[in-house]
Amino acid sequence: MSVVGPKGFIAAGVAAGLKTSGGLDVALVVNQGPNNAVAAVFTTNRCLANPILWSKQVIAGGQASAIVLNSGGANCYTGAQGFQTTHATAEKVAELTGFPAAEIVVCSTGLIGEQLDRPKLLSGVTSAFESLSESGGQDAAHAIMTTDTVVKLGTRSSTEGWTLGGMAKGAGMLAPGLATMLVVITTDAVLNSEQLDTALRAATRVSFDRLDSDGCMSTNDQVTLMSSGASQKTPDLGEFTASLTELCKELALKLLDDAEGSSHNIHITTEGAKTEEDALEVSRAVARNNLFKAAIFGKDPNWGRILAAVGTTSAEFDPYGIDVSINSILISSKGEPAEDRSKVDLSGKEVQVVIDLHAGNLSATVVTNDLTHSYVEENSAYSS
Amino acid sequence: MSVVGPKGFIAAGVAAGLKTSGGLDVALVVNQGPNNAVAAVFTTNRCLANPILWSKQVIAGGQASAIVLNSGGANCYTGAQGFQTTHATAEKVAELTGFPAAEIVVCSTGLIGEQLDRPKLLSGVTSAFESLSESGGQDAAHAIMTTDTVVKLGTRSSTEGWTLGGMAKGAGMLAPGLATMLVVITTDAVLNSEQLDTALRAATRVSFDRLDSDGCMSTNDQVTLMSSGASQKTPDLGEFTASLTELCKELALKLLDDAEGSSHNIHITTEGAKTEEDALEVSRAVARNNLFKAAIFGKDPNWGRILAAVGTTSAEFDPYGIDVSINSILISSKGEPAEDRSKVDLSGKEVQVVIDLHAGNLSATVVTNDLTHSYVEENSAYSS
Repeated sequence: MSVVGPKGFIAAGVAAGLKTSGGLDVALVVNQGPNNAVAAVFTTNRCLANPILWSKQVIAGGQASAIVLNSGGANCYTGAQGFQTTHATAEKVAELTGFPAAEIVVCSTGLIGEQLDRPKLLSGVTSAFESLSESGGQDAAHAIMTTDTVVKLGTRSSTEGWTLGGMAKGAGMLAPGLATMLVVITTDAVLNSEQLDTALRAATRVSFDRLDSDGCMSTNDQVTLMSSGASQKTPDLGEFTASLTELCKELALKLLDDAEGSSHNIHITTEGAKTEEDALEVSRAVARNNLFKAAIFGKDPNWGRILAAVGTTSAEFDPYGIDVSINSILISSKGEPAEDRSKVDLSGKEVQVVIDLHAGNLSATVVTNDLTHSYVEENSAYSS
Repeated sequence: MSVVGPKGFIAAGVAAGLKTSGGLDVALVVNQGPNNAVAAVFTTNRCLANPILWSKQVIAGGQASAIVLNSGGANCYTGAQGFQTTHATAEKVAELTGFPAAEIVVCSTGLIGEQLDRPKLLSGVTSAFESLSESGGQDAAHAIMTTDTVVKLGTRSSTEGWTLGGMAKGAGMLAPGLATMLVVITTDAVLNSEQLDTALRAATRVSFDRLDSDGCMSTNDQVTLMSSGASQKTPDLGEFTASLTELCKELALKLLDDAEGSSHNIHITTEGAKTEEDALEVSRAVARNNLFKAAIFGKDPNWGRILAAVGTTSAEFDPYGIDVSINSILISSKGEPAEDRSKVDLSGKEVQVVIDLHAGNLSATVVTNDLTHSYVEENSAYSS
């Protein structure tokens, strides 16, 4: 399954020695066609890694026949030498596959500011090429992991005969624009690059873009959608987009569930908003509030911290007209305490916060994690 | 010292039983004149506590003869009953002092969403009134503490014969607009409320507003400046503002140094900016980056996380033209690693981060803390 689920794709994941752990660290996914349409969305961070600079050029052409990804180093802020490493990686894949280098997407993830070991990386690319197979999806997904504890895979199939498959990595620095991560999604549906781009932007806007684990945006991350057309089926674009959106949401929730050191998955829904932007701004403000996130870790349904976060936004609302529920218990209504906060059960991993602004009928959900000792530990004891 | 340093002020702090610990929790500061000019700046949070709603009206009148403050409850989101408690508090001070209730400023701090015990509070106000003295500044400063571990006092004296004195509380939720906290500053200089307002806004803009301990903005906090005119000296407004600014900076650094669970005071200076707003936006983005803050806790000079935060801003810069220094070691220059990161010594409590955008000649400094296990512990294990 995963990226090799759809017809026309082969993949591999190998250990090139970039990770000090010796784990898998180079992934290669090759599109055998007949088509090679591609689309991608990129981090909106203005400090961009070398692979992002390269891949943006590839994607602009609308065609990609392979994507090569490495963990063990972000190749960001590594200067001209770093860009040459990215370029050499694409050239190596081109040499091995016979496709033009300008159709090879490159992604990297890991520590910023350190050069990748180019000989090791290129040797890994060769090994990956030699290992390519229709069953290589699992290894490829393993090879892009950094602090992830599990591989993240997903698939969707249409009764019309086309399929979507995806793999994702990311366990921190997950914040929009574009919730940062590396994601590769493949499909054998027949779609051109403009159609892929339309579908991908619609899907990521309500999935990865609404995942905000720690408010931190990466320099490296990218969601790439490749089409082989091997099913020879041309989907209805609306149906395809709906299916892609489902897959993106599934992968986003898998990223959330594996976020560094979290003990709760918090779904923050703002409803009754005048605009969707208002709903999003309010949900995001709460998702980024460290005091609220620490309270949830402590199983404390601290609605005061929620309202204090809501109050920092420019959304339309009456501060004394807001309702707040946690796990279906209405704990604050219209500026006053409502049901007893002790009724709120935060012992489970999933937490549903619903904020009703009573200012309209639009809504948006942002998902985040709690702020835990383990988060601090993972992000202070190890460079990443 | 503190608020009773300037002539014309008496103060007290008493235990009214609002804090479960039994500690001091009601403070009263009375201005004996001859003048009673006042100015204040308030949280920009749109969810405002009852004492803020009340005090804004008092400050609009430009005159205040007393300020009464309580810890042990924020009196925020407590509905009409909560507002009546604030009103009753002002009325009680008015009854005891003979000043109009409309000239009594009220501040509260503590947990949101719980009613204050009105009888206990009013009884505490009476006790405080009976305890008023020229040596009550220390007790008053104690009575406004919440999770603070030390009282925060400061003073400035002019050779011209006028004096400033201040007390502050706050150890979390310290973020602008207005770095949130309770601060009372008194002066015996002769100044009207417009002059006080001008000076206070200028001073807080570069002091409390540049303190961002955890990005969280409170519903309750306020900086109040009261003038008795008892020195009979009319200062030059520029000199007064400079002195007030120094005092505000001193108090802000004392808040920083006592921030919940921090192990480093981080001073983030952005220089070489095209505008001061750009410099401020960049410094603030870094100050709010959890990954960077956790890295500093781990004594890891992780400049990649700094640049990733810088890249989220709209400031003018070339992403490959930025220099980053930590504690005077230039660790990244123009998009590449520079000096060896192991040279950076993060064993001390003070950390100086300097980001040079090379886009102009303006600068701004924001101070923050690291993200530590103790921060998570304090904000998860205890409701506040």
